[in-house]
Amino acid sequence: MTSADAPGPLGSGTPVLAFDVGGTDTKSALIGADGRVLGLRRTPTPLDPADPAGAVVTSIGALTRLHLDETPGVAPVAVGVSVPGLVDEVSGVGIFASNLGWRDAPIRALTEAATGLPVAFGHDVRAAGDAEHRLGAARGYGDVVVLAIGTGIASSLILGGHPYAGGGYAGEFGHSLADPLGEPCACGAIGCLETIASAGAITRRYRQASGNPVTGAKDVLDAAGTGDPVARRVWNDAVESLAQALARVVANLAPEAIIIGGGLAQSGPALFDPLGERLDALLSFHRRPALVHAELGDDAGLLGTALAARDLAAARAAEAAQ
Amino acid sequence: MTSADAPGPLGSGTPVLAFDVGGTDTKSALIGADGRVLGLRRTPTPLDPADPAGAVVTSIGALTRLHLDETPGVAPVAVGVSVPGLVDEVSGVGIFASNLGWRDAPIRALTEAATGLPVAFGHDVRAAGDAEHRLGAARGYGDVVVLAIGTGIASSLILGGHPYAGGGYAGEFGHSLADPLGEPCACGAIGCLETIASAGAITRRYRQASGNPVTGAKDVLDAAGTGDPVARRVWNDAVESLAQALARVVANLAPEAIIIGGGLAQSGPALFDPLGERLDALLSFHRRPALVHAELGDDAGLLGTALAARDLAAARAAEAAQ
Repeated sequence: MTSADAPGPLGSGTPVLAFDVGGTDTKSALIGADGRVLGLRRTPTPLDPADPAGAVVTSIGALTRLHLDETPGVAPVAVGVSVPGLVDEVSGVGIFASNLGWRDAPIRALTEAATGLPVAFGHDVRAAGDAEHRLGAARGYGDVVVLAIGTGIASSLILGGHPYAGGGYAGEFGHSLADPLGEPCACGAIGCLETIASAGAITRRYRQASGNPVTGAKDVLDAAGTGDPVARRVWNDAVESLAQALARVVANLAPEAIIIGGGLAQSGPALFDPLGERLDALLSFHRRPALVHAELGDDAGLLGTALAARDLAAARAAEAAQ
Repeated sequence: MTSADAPGPLGSGTPVLAFDVGGTDTKSALIGADGRVLGLRRTPTPLDPADPAGAVVTSIGALTRLHLDETPGVAPVAVGVSVPGLVDEVSGVGIFASNLGWRDAPIRALTEAATGLPVAFGHDVRAAGDAEHRLGAARGYGDVVVLAIGTGIASSLILGGHPYAGGGYAGEFGHSLADPLGEPCACGAIGCLETIASAGAITRRYRQASGNPVTGAKDVLDAAGTGDPVARRVWNDAVESLAQALARVVANLAPEAIIIGGGLAQSGPALFDPLGERLDALLSFHRRPALVHAELGDDAGLLGTALAARDLAAARAAEAAQ
């Protein structure tokens, strides 16, 4: 992530420990006082249907000891934990996570007990959005939407300069209605954007329509480039649905910029050019947002989680000083 | 608006003068220290293509003298002015108003010069939303969308407890895409929600499809009630488009409540019941908002404008005390 000599992306601050818990892997690292990311590791996230939150927190406890043993010179003063799903950052509760299996899990309290440190608990996509806003492509914008388009589609909203969570339920751009006559979505609704425009949907839809067993959206884009009409239709449907959904967000929220990350963003101009063109055509007097490639890549979630832990440490220090 | 003896809806505070400038009429009133609305009047808004902003501000100046002469016991310490269109509340500029004809008009500065008082300048729909939030149906909600459905469709967003303006461009719910294959909208885009679901669109679409020269959406609803199939289709299209557009707002913003006002809201259960049912059917894990009838009616804009003027007066007093 950073070379041994490079100053860290986070800048100087208190040392913290950060965990970005995903449905498959958990990323973790110590962040030094100089902002360097130390001992970055990726560990399978344990799945225990009988005690899903307990299993994840036990793993966080074991990883904490491992990081501290490995890097004895760094003493973190707070821990950051981000998880997917519906997250109530105020109460510290994981409301729901379909891939991890918990409901109303008091992750913050459990992690505080397991680590003996104050815990900043948050949502993985909002953490990534916060990192892009403070360190990456969304820097300098007050009103900005940060999209992650991969297997699914998620978004993080920064409005009036501040992250907006809607009680943990906001930013479900992937589960906004794209086609009322479309396919059932895994979430239980019909025709969600995610069923047409995610990298996962592009792959699946092309496979179904062509019988061609491609392994990713990149293969579909390549096929479209060679003139494959099915691939072109699937790709164009995804771009058009994204443009329509973004046009609606623009009408309602008028972001100055839309930051696009995740696997599909790696398509570069093949995505950004037609998307920008179609979005432009769908708008009239609306404020036109810049479409910008995300900067921080896969580590945005971990960096945002570390930022939240540092914020918590600073708040605690300020309280203690009073 | 209030009887001579009733305490005013705004409660006690500084006396102010408020102007809600509409495309047809300007509403104005003095607000007493006890919060009563005094001398409420409705005056045609002057339209002067050569100097649209100047004509409106000249009228505001004349109305100011009239109100002061009429109610000599009340000395306003600030003026509130709200206008339609695109409004930059920070710079005090009316960016654009199609029905008034201005572009980049420095209304705040002009009104300060014309009245000799500090001026709180804002957007009519956001002023109405603020009034509903502080005095009406949106009270107690932190994340709430306030809709006004009449000739057009506008909305005001309160997010995280604060009004969200998006640089003056947010809340254009009526100009969010409803039907990509739909009718051209006056704004220049295609298939805006306003072309299907406003009271104006319902009337126009029914007239066009039936040849029946109805004068309002109420007539269409009445015809639907007698089994007129064209009226039922037009009404159902409006409800369905509204439900779909709201479902998208719910996915992205997760409001706790959606407040619905404007002429169409007067349909009551004929609107709220099917709308709630369809919205419910379109959602899955999303946070389900309460659908609530607006409370303040036509005067919400004027009340919100007066609140803004009082806020400004309080801020100036606090500055002066430092």
